[in-house]
Amino acid sequence: MSWEGLIEENFDRFVEELKEFLKIPSVSADPRFRDDVFECADWLVKAIKDAGADKVELIPTDKYPLVYAEKNVDENAPTIWIYGHYDVQPPDPLDQWITPPFEPDIRDGAIYARGASDDKGQLYMYVKALELLNKVGKLKYNLRFLIEGEEEIGSENLEKYILQNHDSMKGDMVLVSDTALPGPETPGITVSLRGICYFEVSAYGPSHDLHSGTYGGAVQNPVHAIAHLIIALRDPITGRIMIPGFYDDVKELDPEERELVRKGSWNDEEIKKSLGIDALIGEAGFSPFESATIRPSMDVNGIWGGYTGEGSKTIIPSEAHAKISFRLVADQSWQKINEAFKKFVEEFKVPGIRFEVKTFHGGDPVKTPLEFWGYQKAANAMEQVFGKKPIPLYTGGSIPVLATWQRKTGMPPILMGFGLESDRIHAPNEHFNLNLFRKGINTICTLLSSEL
Amino acid sequence: MSWEGLIEENFDRFVEELKEFLKIPSVSADPRFRDDVFECADWLVKAIKDAGADKVELIPTDKYPLVYAEKNVDENAPTIWIYGHYDVQPPDPLDQWITPPFEPDIRDGAIYARGASDDKGQLYMYVKALELLNKVGKLKYNLRFLIEGEEEIGSENLEKYILQNHDSMKGDMVLVSDTALPGPETPGITVSLRGICYFEVSAYGPSHDLHSGTYGGAVQNPVHAIAHLIIALRDPITGRIMIPGFYDDVKELDPEERELVRKGSWNDEEIKKSLGIDALIGEAGFSPFESATIRPSMDVNGIWGGYTGEGSKTIIPSEAHAKISFRLVADQSWQKINEAFKKFVEEFKVPGIRFEVKTFHGGDPVKTPLEFWGYQKAANAMEQVFGKKPIPLYTGGSIPVLATWQRKTGMPPILMGFGLESDRIHAPNEHFNLNLFRKGINTICTLLSSEL
Repeated sequence: MSWEGLIEENFDRFVEELKEFLKIPSVSADPRFRDDVFECADWLVKAIKDAGADKVELIPTDKYPLVYAEKNVDENAPTIWIYGHYDVQPPDPLDQWITPPFEPDIRDGAIYARGASDDKGQLYMYVKALELLNKVGKLKYNLRFLIEGEEEIGSENLEKYILQNHDSMKGDMVLVSDTALPGPETPGITVSLRGICYFEVSAYGPSHDLHSGTYGGAVQNPVHAIAHLIIALRDPITGRIMIPGFYDDVKELDPEERELVRKGSWNDEEIKKSLGIDALIGEAGFSPFESATIRPSMDVNGIWGGYTGEGSKTIIPSEAHAKISFRLVADQSWQKINEAFKKFVEEFKVPGIRFEVKTFHGGDPVKTPLEFWGYQKAANAMEQVFGKKPIPLYTGGSIPVLATWQRKTGMPPILMGFGLESDRIHAPNEHFNLNLFRKGINTICTLLSSEL
Repeated sequence: MSWEGLIEENFDRFVEELKEFLKIPSVSADPRFRDDVFECADWLVKAIKDAGADKVELIPTDKYPLVYAEKNVDENAPTIWIYGHYDVQPPDPLDQWITPPFEPDIRDGAIYARGASDDKGQLYMYVKALELLNKVGKLKYNLRFLIEGEEEIGSENLEKYILQNHDSMKGDMVLVSDTALPGPETPGITVSLRGICYFEVSAYGPSHDLHSGTYGGAVQNPVHAIAHLIIALRDPITGRIMIPGFYDDVKELDPEERELVRKGSWNDEEIKKSLGIDALIGEAGFSPFESATIRPSMDVNGIWGGYTGEGSKTIIPSEAHAKISFRLVADQSWQKINEAFKKFVEEFKVPGIRFEVKTFHGGDPVKTPLEFWGYQKAANAMEQVFGKKPIPLYTGGSIPVLATWQRKTGMPPILMGFGLESDRIHAPNEHFNLNLFRKGINTICTLLSSEL
């Protein structure tokens, strides 16, 4: 039987297995889920073993273990590394989930759970592709799985692992499914990802909360100060980030490549409708899509300070905090932006206020050359399954560790994702289209069995 | 025995009784404490009965009851109304309390608990003064207690009560102890209070939290929008509030009165040291003290939006919120400012964002004429107890309902407070100096037994 037949025959079981994977609340950002993250790694080891890998092991790190696996078919064949992550985003706000985030539910042809699309569902396609190719004996490449449990918190330990072990990491490309297709019927391969630099900024004012009647007007308010900083960071007219030197290493795309970017663009009207907003924004001279993909951006991911309970409390808060992150594009370096941001805040003086900056994590942008043979093979596999040539995609998200991986080992990444932008990753009611789960397994089998 | 002697003889009991009063967590802002607020009202009724009032009753309202009491001595004598509040501010942040907020603790000559100074400790002085004057038979005025349980959330129901019943509220002045002295040995009577107008502003962006990689740069961030609004409301150079018409009704003080204000001013260096900040701020042309007392101000009392947990989450939040309040001075009207602020926000357009404003409560500013006989009597009583003439005080806080009370009944307020600015009201480790508790009872007895 072909792998296509086997996919149909075993599909219900595959989905049940994926549900088990999704039930484990492997939230890496929240220490309360620590045991679950470890349990999730163990579960994955067993799943890859059961799929027929030659060797599977946990590589301990300072935080959550890496899952490493090998399958060797021919020492002369190219070696493909498979990367993914078994950790997930925090599930809050919990009250907005229709079904609980860690009780997977199937409805309207999709599986709903935190991590369904990002990245457990997509990662699990490789485990099942390995099982099927073993059954039909058609695997043509040596495989290496290297799966981490800290992608959602910055991949620090995988980064360290690569920096320490890159000499022994031999291979020809890194295959990843952690991105989205332009549409359920429209194939695409992501060739550009933004980098990231994530901070927490704190503004400290008076040593304790003050009565806003007694002191209001005479004592600077830390919320006011942090609002000033936020506004100073981005020009309200041009949308450009005001940190000196921020754009120094931003490489402008040539007109041909910009045309390619536009081909993969969303439709502004559709996006506005789907997000329930009346306008998009963007950097002066760039479309909203370009601003979110080939241009850097800044966001406040969270803010808090003072009284946030019910009703009113008349205080000048003692402190205020914001999580602020930047998305970077080639050839920006997150280390340089990290230094530039810290300097900006250091020089941003608000009388009566002391600022502090904590860097959480960072990652450089990634680009895959369109002329790379691995890209061509992946594109052919997609074309066979979807009946259409994939579009090269320029996307706004970040997989920080891939830049390091490429730089240290020379392996270009192939970002062959099967999610959809509407999957609500990082938000309540995350889901993954089960037909794309099926097509993903099929595409991976097609690629990994393709002639050398 | 004189009341002075009785104060000493009974002081330990008075403190034990006050502890019982403080143990009841009557937090009006938080519905979880609803039963406690009611219990606190009952406790106060019993305490005033025990002190020898002719009549004590609960007046039900739409939320928390008013405590009303009468003591009549002579129908030809003036009638003094006593106002105070039995509700308290929320106690958070809880982890900053040295001893728990509702387990009163005596140390360094002060009683520590939420409400110790604001206002239970100060209110209880009147209950004990009534007890003592009854014992020694020296009460010269008819008394009316009207105590509310919603001062910390805007006095809405006392306001309603006054608007409905002012015709039957006969009397000559309103006596209040809910303010602070310039220092433990320096008497003062507050003659000016600011008004207040308290809002919650919400900024709504996309219908759900978005991945900040996918959309960052193309979708306006509600935190960014609310920061823009905050910054637009107050000129960073002049410190003036930018709402059109905001200063229209602000009455400039004449140079003589401004000189009086300066006499009651804090010392900037001491304030900076005590608050742990390196600079004060202020409206251009006014000292920090003036900016916090005889000039209006704006504060953000709280802000929240997006991910505020541990670690990082890469989202564009769907919404952000801020509690924003303004302090007003004579002759501003909070209703006019309410309308002006709502109009300002309505006209403040941020593409992709929808703002909403909820008005929580408001109150007009208050001024007591220095030539009023009640002021003179209160000043004499203070001078007898403290050995010095009290300073007329211009303060920044608000007791919103007093403006209505004065306007509707013609009774001027006498704000004879015995707290200290260092009492940390509205903050962790609120406390009340026990020697001032003693002196307060003494002063009240002196005033209420003074010759007509």
